[in-house]
Amino acid sequence: MKNYIKHDPWCIIEEGFHPEFNEVTESLMSLGNGRMGQRGSFEETYSGASLQGNYIAGVWFPDKTKVGWWKNGYPNYFAKVINAINWNGLSIQIDGIELDLATCEIISFWRTLNMKDGTLKRVCTVKMENGHELTIESVRFCSMSHDEAAVLSYSITPLNFAGTAKITAFLDGDVSNKDSNHGEKFWEEVDKEIVGTEAYLTLKTKESPWENVPRFTITSGMHVKLFKAEKVQEVQSLPVRGDKYVGRTFEVDLTTNIKTTVQKYVCNLSSENHAPESQVAVAKKYLNEIAHLGFEVLLGDHKKAWEEKWNHNDIKINGDIAAQQGIRFNIFHLEQTYTGKDARLNIGPKGFTGEKYGGVTYWDTEAYCIPFYLATAPEEVSKNLLVYRHNQLQKAIENASILGFNNGAALYPMVTMNGEECHNEWEITFEEIHRNGAIAYAIYDYINYTGDKSYLKDYGLDVLIGISRFWAQRVNWSEDKKKYVMLGVTGPNEYENNVNNNWYTNYMAQWTLKYTLEALAYVKENGGVKAELNFDEAAETKHWQDIIEKMYFPYDAGRQVFLQQDGFLDKELLAATDIEEHRPINQKWSWDRILRSCFIKQADVLQGMYFHEDDFSKEELERNFDFYEPMTVHESSLSPCVHTILACKLGRIEKADEMYVRTARLDLDDYNNDTEDGLHITSMAGTWMAVVKGFGGMRVKDGELSFNPVLPGSWESYSFRVGFQGVLKEVTVNKDGYEVKDL
Amino acid sequence: MKNYIKHDPWCIIEEGFHPEFNEVTESLMSLGNGRMGQRGSFEETYSGASLQGNYIAGVWFPDKTKVGWWKNGYPNYFAKVINAINWNGLSIQIDGIELDLATCEIISFWRTLNMKDGTLKRVCTVKMENGHELTIESVRFCSMSHDEAAVLSYSITPLNFAGTAKITAFLDGDVSNKDSNHGEKFWEEVDKEIVGTEAYLTLKTKESPWENVPRFTITSGMHVKLFKAEKVQEVQSLPVRGDKYVGRTFEVDLTTNIKTTVQKYVCNLSSENHAPESQVAVAKKYLNEIAHLGFEVLLGDHKKAWEEKWNHNDIKINGDIAAQQGIRFNIFHLEQTYTGKDARLNIGPKGFTGEKYGGVTYWDTEAYCIPFYLATAPEEVSKNLLVYRHNQLQKAIENASILGFNNGAALYPMVTMNGEECHNEWEITFEEIHRNGAIAYAIYDYINYTGDKSYLKDYGLDVLIGISRFWAQRVNWSEDKKKYVMLGVTGPNEYENNVNNNWYTNYMAQWTLKYTLEALAYVKENGGVKAELNFDEAAETKHWQDIIEKMYFPYDAGRQVFLQQDGFLDKELLAATDIEEHRPINQKWSWDRILRSCFIKQADVLQGMYFHEDDFSKEELERNFDFYEPMTVHESSLSPCVHTILACKLGRIEKADEMYVRTARLDLDDYNNDTEDGLHITSMAGTWMAVVKGFGGMRVKDGELSFNPVLPGSWESYSFRVGFQGVLKEVTVNKDGYEVKDL
Repeated sequence: MKNYIKHDPWCIIEEGFHPEFNEVTESLMSLGNGRMGQRGSFEETYSGASLQGNYIAGVWFPDKTKVGWWKNGYPNYFAKVINAINWNGLSIQIDGIELDLATCEIISFWRTLNMKDGTLKRVCTVKMENGHELTIESVRFCSMSHDEAAVLSYSITPLNFAGTAKITAFLDGDVSNKDSNHGEKFWEEVDKEIVGTEAYLTLKTKESPWENVPRFTITSGMHVKLFKAEKVQEVQSLPVRGDKYVGRTFEVDLTTNIKTTVQKYVCNLSSENHAPESQVAVAKKYLNEIAHLGFEVLLGDHKKAWEEKWNHNDIKINGDIAAQQGIRFNIFHLEQTYTGKDARLNIGPKGFTGEKYGGVTYWDTEAYCIPFYLATAPEEVSKNLLVYRHNQLQKAIENASILGFNNGAALYPMVTMNGEECHNEWEITFEEIHRNGAIAYAIYDYINYTGDKSYLKDYGLDVLIGISRFWAQRVNWSEDKKKYVMLGVTGPNEYENNVNNNWYTNYMAQWTLKYTLEALAYVKENGGVKAELNFDEAAETKHWQDIIEKMYFPYDAGRQVFLQQDGFLDKELLAATDIEEHRPINQKWSWDRILRSCFIKQADVLQGMYFHEDDFSKEELERNFDFYEPMTVHESSLSPCVHTILACKLGRIEKADEMYVRTARLDLDDYNNDTEDGLHITSMAGTWMAVVKGFGGMRVKDGELSFNPVLPGSWESYSFRVGFQGVLKEVTVNKDGYEVKDL
Repeated sequence: MKNYIKHDPWCIIEEGFHPEFNEVTESLMSLGNGRMGQRGSFEETYSGASLQGNYIAGVWFPDKTKVGWWKNGYPNYFAKVINAINWNGLSIQIDGIELDLATCEIISFWRTLNMKDGTLKRVCTVKMENGHELTIESVRFCSMSHDEAAVLSYSITPLNFAGTAKITAFLDGDVSNKDSNHGEKFWEEVDKEIVGTEAYLTLKTKESPWENVPRFTITSGMHVKLFKAEKVQEVQSLPVRGDKYVGRTFEVDLTTNIKTTVQKYVCNLSSENHAPESQVAVAKKYLNEIAHLGFEVLLGDHKKAWEEKWNHNDIKINGDIAAQQGIRFNIFHLEQTYTGKDARLNIGPKGFTGEKYGGVTYWDTEAYCIPFYLATAPEEVSKNLLVYRHNQLQKAIENASILGFNNGAALYPMVTMNGEECHNEWEITFEEIHRNGAIAYAIYDYINYTGDKSYLKDYGLDVLIGISRFWAQRVNWSEDKKKYVMLGVTGPNEYENNVNNNWYTNYMAQWTLKYTLEALAYVKENGGVKAELNFDEAAETKHWQDIIEKMYFPYDAGRQVFLQQDGFLDKELLAATDIEEHRPINQKWSWDRILRSCFIKQADVLQGMYFHEDDFSKEELERNFDFYEPMTVHESSLSPCVHTILACKLGRIEKADEMYVRTARLDLDDYNNDTEDGLHITSMAGTWMAVVKGFGGMRVKDGELSFNPVLPGSWESYSFRVGFQGVLKEVTVNKDGYEVKDL
């Protein structure tokens, strides 16, 4: 755990440079606008620890699978969001010496991410090795109003010298992914052009050995303006060309105490949105408009876009500034990562803040993110996330057929970019199939929240039938139990692998079959089932009904709790508090020891009781919570939020608070020592849920929105805003009670 | 399955060149003498498909682990037997054109491995691209009598031309392993020297990043003699030097129909047996002696050594030449791989015939190879295999401690070279712990066969206590079952992973504890238990007794069969014959489908009943055999032999025969399409067991040797030889009965 970020309600502030945490800070201060994003690295050369990362939504490369021991059915590649052109790069030589904070004495330093307006600022004063002192001021943003544009304003002011600066503003595409499986670079150069103070660089992803893998073309353009004392300067400049690199070097005279400013207007286009052959022409036109608008206008539009977002989704917490900062940090990054305009995009586990995990779509999207976007964004945003899966249904059917299923059974991948499975651990890839359940549940969740039942006919039913067919083939009849069983699965608690009859998975399977039959009935009455689904009503319905009736659920009659899986009671049942010195167990124990222990990585039975809360009495929930919660080590960032929500439901505010604290500042305080790899974007939605569905007690049932708020002990009051069926509501909770206001 | 090898009682004959199977033939025709070995590749340049492989026993490199997803406790490296100096290489240019069978027309061709005398011969007549016809005759062997020496005699006879040949005889150490994890080469050059027609090359394995990893130095030397029409020739020659390469090029006049012969006398020394600094000097002296003895003397000594081996271990089968060839092939390769002189060596799964799997020691050694060597070689040979494990006890204790065990608990590795674990699949590395049981059982087996109880005091008890301590910590008390259970294991049937209460593993654990207590009692009475074992008699004995009494064994009371593991009866119980078109399932099914199916890779419950046959009635065996055998797909080469033995015991000769056929010619007929990677050395011992313990019904009980032979339907008669407590016995079986003769 780290504690160097200043507590502030709206800003993430690094005061005084912490080079030892630089990669953590870069992650925290990442910028994005749904179309592109980048880590909060310095603009000028920095020879210390840094992970330069610029990413463009939807642009990926099929990085060849790396595996110790191959298993049949493993995917050929792991689709990765790839490091793209570094657009904010500057190289600054002052009197022949490269400006590099790693070789300077830092006199003062502030790096600030302003979450209210989505800007990254830096003000610092440094002394170079030759004694030159100067101040750097930079501001940049990825425009929320013009989502293919980004802007940088970068100034230096000499404090104790006059001299000459050679400033090279560049676009550098000679980049690689830190997590490249085989050390490959993924780009090849297509075109470069330098015209006056403009430059354009066009790259294309390399050819891959796999069929049906798209190749992406990206074009970045920059338009550079130079100012001295805020007046435009025309100075001598020279073009610079390199491998996948274009730049322009300006020779500038520096005057003591006079500010020299470089503005970079940048566009980042991708062939996902433009024909590759006309991309450079489009870039020129777009960049011309942007540069013409100028920094202040662009910044104004950008701030307005953020203001609108905050107007719909802000959560205010009074009396706990750390909690206030934490929740806004989570909302801010969620908004930067996904704006919901494009059904081809999804929410990567690290968003635009790092490379780890690759892929962009996990079941996190359905289980955690959709509730957030449902309440804070227009209906289309969550609908696009559902349509994304609908569009990948055929791939999910192919994926299932690789594993031996047929007749349109669909298994959605554990990790994907384009619908194809990317992950390659058999116990996850082939067995963590509960993800299918979350995808079905999200359809229910969306319709329950929005009331948009029409979604079923055009999209939802197709997906539900594919998933139900999968469950119907994945169970088998146990002659021994005279029940349907599901063997060899991994549940949400990934600290168990290849278990039989994971209660959660069996429950989600049974529920999906039920819900699909309901959906079928609705669609039959409202326009009819599509012929191309080839649904054999008599046979399939009968088989599904039989499974629904005879599904097996492990249960402990003594304790009256559901059992996470067969054989769970053979374990030594300890509490997480019994093994404090062994935690986190995923760093201290070998995998077999973790597996045979009772310890739970993240909510499993409790995840099911959270999804289906109306199926269980409070007493049932209480018994199961008291059985499983003490064994839960929360070594997944997705775990504490569900426990917060359930604890609130049980009136255990202290426990809820304890859980909430673990989730809200996970990245800000770098609890797990891994923020340098990027932020835990999807679990941020869980934090939001912890406040709104946990403390706020928000529920939607039969088209009715309700709240049942509680106030955590350390807070004076809080308020949150949610949109529901066209109305924006503000809920304010304080010691005296709560108020719901339509805005 | 391939069928190009001629059936012959003593020889493996490729008649007519089969370039498409060249790598298979290279594997089949591998040579070895326990100290070194090599694949049966051509001596001259060959540009077609070939895997050149020369290996020196005990010499390895810690190849950096390759893994898709790291788990705590995985080993840093996979120790590999590494490709060493190619000693038999020749490059032959005739009138300026390289002799290369890939570019010649083959007029006639025989490549023959003579198993009786351990020589590899080739006679072939080819037409070169320029029309030159010539005959090649080569003979080579790795000397069984001088085990650091190898000899090659290679002749060419021009048939329709006279001309000039440039013959380069070389030692080439610029080699790599095909299975190198990261494409690395493992050798660096230390020294090279060319003196007249002698040359020496000394290499050292590269430095590795891991601590306590030995570096090996090898020296190969060659002494070249040249003959024309069998008379020694002095011809002009030039030294050739390259990176890790020494050679000598001879200019030879070729006369029509006159044979030119090159003899290469070679020594291969390793720092395992010589001080590196004096290795070249030793090589010179050794090589001088060898070359002085000459080809015929060396060949004579070599043949005599083989004669002695066959005298002790031959199996004769009359009436089935394919079976005869198959069993001798298996015995021959076992004898080449391990001679039992050195307790630092063990039996790699591919011996000296290929690189796949790496490591040299699996539980195959204890379960399959030791019975073979017990009966066919002096007592010291199997004793050395046991001592090998004894010497690695400390590493096994360290290995267990990495996984969280303590107090001297030992977990022997799944795959190892020097006692450290090399494998990196969690379900195998951490969970296939039954290997520990086989290592304990081998101690019992050795003492039972040899009567050498003194082994317990000096070696055996240490190992037994270490393993028993492991079992005692690995089980846990199930409050639910009121029994000791063992969770999260993989049994011998690797088509189940991470199961609970694998019957075989639980049985081996319980048995080990019992046997250790017996061994303790014996050692206490015969000299006392070593103090350094820190054995806490009161506490440990009591705990072990409790586990012995209260160990849980899954059982089906209805069918009265032991259950392979908890939950086995939830599976859909099918027969292998129901899924013929899906086999082999390890090539056609994804891993999850295999895991949740009932299909069994290799004997599991039945392996336990085989080891402990006296614990079970014939009826019990019959019930379990009838339950499990139909579900067994035998996709491990170690499976059919155990089934042969059990089927013989049950009097099911036809079933035994069916199983035997699958094992005896596995490599010769390339059943699994993988002989090109090398031979299945350890399973060859299983084939021997199938004949001697299966058909021959050999057993040792209470110091008595007994036989209970049956005759497979297709055989007229058979005989085998076994040594027992100093006496060599021959058992002859025919239609009329059987006879046991002391020789």
